[in-house]
Amino acid sequence: MPDSLKNRRTIRKYTSKQIDDALLNELFEVAFRASNTGNMQLYSVVITRDAEMKKKLSPLHFNQPMVEQAPVVLTFCADLNRFIKWCNQRNAKPGYDNFQTFITSLIDATIVAQTFCVAAEEKGLGICYLGTVTYMTEQIIDILELPQYVVPVATITLGYPEVIPEQVERLPVAGLLHNEVYNDYSPSDIDQFYAEKEALSVNQSYVLENKKETLAHVFTDIRYTKENNERFSETFLNAIKKQGFLK
Amino acid sequence: MPDSLKNRRTIRKYTSKQIDDALLNELFEVAFRASNTGNMQLYSVVITRDAEMKKKLSPLHFNQPMVEQAPVVLTFCADLNRFIKWCNQRNAKPGYDNFQTFITSLIDATIVAQTFCVAAEEKGLGICYLGTVTYMTEQIIDILELPQYVVPVATITLGYPEVIPEQVERLPVAGLLHNEVYNDYSPSDIDQFYAEKEALSVNQSYVLENKKETLAHVFTDIRYTKENNERFSETFLNAIKKQGFLK
Repeated sequence: MPDSLKNRRTIRKYTSKQIDDALLNELFEVAFRASNTGNMQLYSVVITRDAEMKKKLSPLHFNQPMVEQAPVVLTFCADLNRFIKWCNQRNAKPGYDNFQTFITSLIDATIVAQTFCVAAEEKGLGICYLGTVTYMTEQIIDILELPQYVVPVATITLGYPEVIPEQVERLPVAGLLHNEVYNDYSPSDIDQFYAEKEALSVNQSYVLENKKETLAHVFTDIRYTKENNERFSETFLNAIKKQGFLK
Repeated sequence: MPDSLKNRRTIRKYTSKQIDDALLNELFEVAFRASNTGNMQLYSVVITRDAEMKKKLSPLHFNQPMVEQAPVVLTFCADLNRFIKWCNQRNAKPGYDNFQTFITSLIDATIVAQTFCVAAEEKGLGICYLGTVTYMTEQIIDILELPQYVVPVATITLGYPEVIPEQVERLPVAGLLHNEVYNDYSPSDIDQFYAEKEALSVNQSYVLENKKETLAHVFTDIRYTKENNERFSETFLNAIKKQGFLK
């Protein structure tokens, strides 16, 4: 098992070293070997290297500095455009303007994105996923000029790590696994599985800085609020509808 | 770059060799190190080893023989149940019963599933994804006893390969990449990118066997029909609604 898998960290600061075209191509070759539904390959990747394009994308990713700082930004898209064009050109009648096909291609695009990331990390590169891609989806569609039946679902920034941060905590493995059927969590299970996370000094400082009662309140009241989640639910549904996946 | 990434194949036939608990645990440790949104870890995995459980799951995966034949079946789920329970137990008010949160956890569960697969393949195991999990979702929820806010999104079968099949074709890498903005496909681009796939004797036999005009017709008329896609769009939407993600 390569160390890059066991010891992985998200990298948010990159050196100025550029990424060689041949390396990037090798990583895509590997990523596109990943499992996919019916070997239809219902995905595309938009490569952003141009500084002007990064400047346009940056506010849509809430001005996270990685977007302008990384040598390469990749936007992985669920893409039925190519497949539908192929079907039409062969006089076959595609029935892919629906939610199930969107979910299938979203999953397949995500599998490709993650395979790319694992391969990149094994080559010494660092990555950071930007979840903002499913928030500001319509605007990203405009800037990347995505046609009907193409929706961005995963954005990563990519570059050589300038700083290797500490590895962050995870919940105990046992807390995420269920044997045969789902064993629902009792109140004491919850206390037990979240105890280490809540006790970490970095998380306790985080609660203090944000003047909240508990770490859970930092998530519900600041980081992932009901109001934002509902707003972004609407914008994302609008985007997939506008791109032709919900009739 | 490990060979298991470059030379990967989906494995559909497994030897009778069981998977060691320590190995399985190591693979989960690695998989759960993958990137995830806000380090909330909004996913769970249900492990199926029991023959009776496999027998119940099998028809929901359209009786694909891998389900009963593989020593282990894993169902990766988008899971807000644990996180919401934690928030409630700390008197924080979770706002996670919405589509955006579902999409976030679906993406994170998929990233974990694929990281698991890459790690498993590096250890000599073989995997096969079963896309049927997003078709027969409600029934799988019942059998695995998944509570509110838990939806299965990726199922894999796992075991030691009995046969290593030929590597299957992929579209040319250039056909999947776009520089800076999406370069839409002209009719001749489509012909060019699909030429190799269409010319393969295995695909040509496939067209003949199915008595279809072209390979595209095999997809539209047999494998992924409009009728099925629309039916499974409805069942999947019902499942995520029933599990509490669409108000």
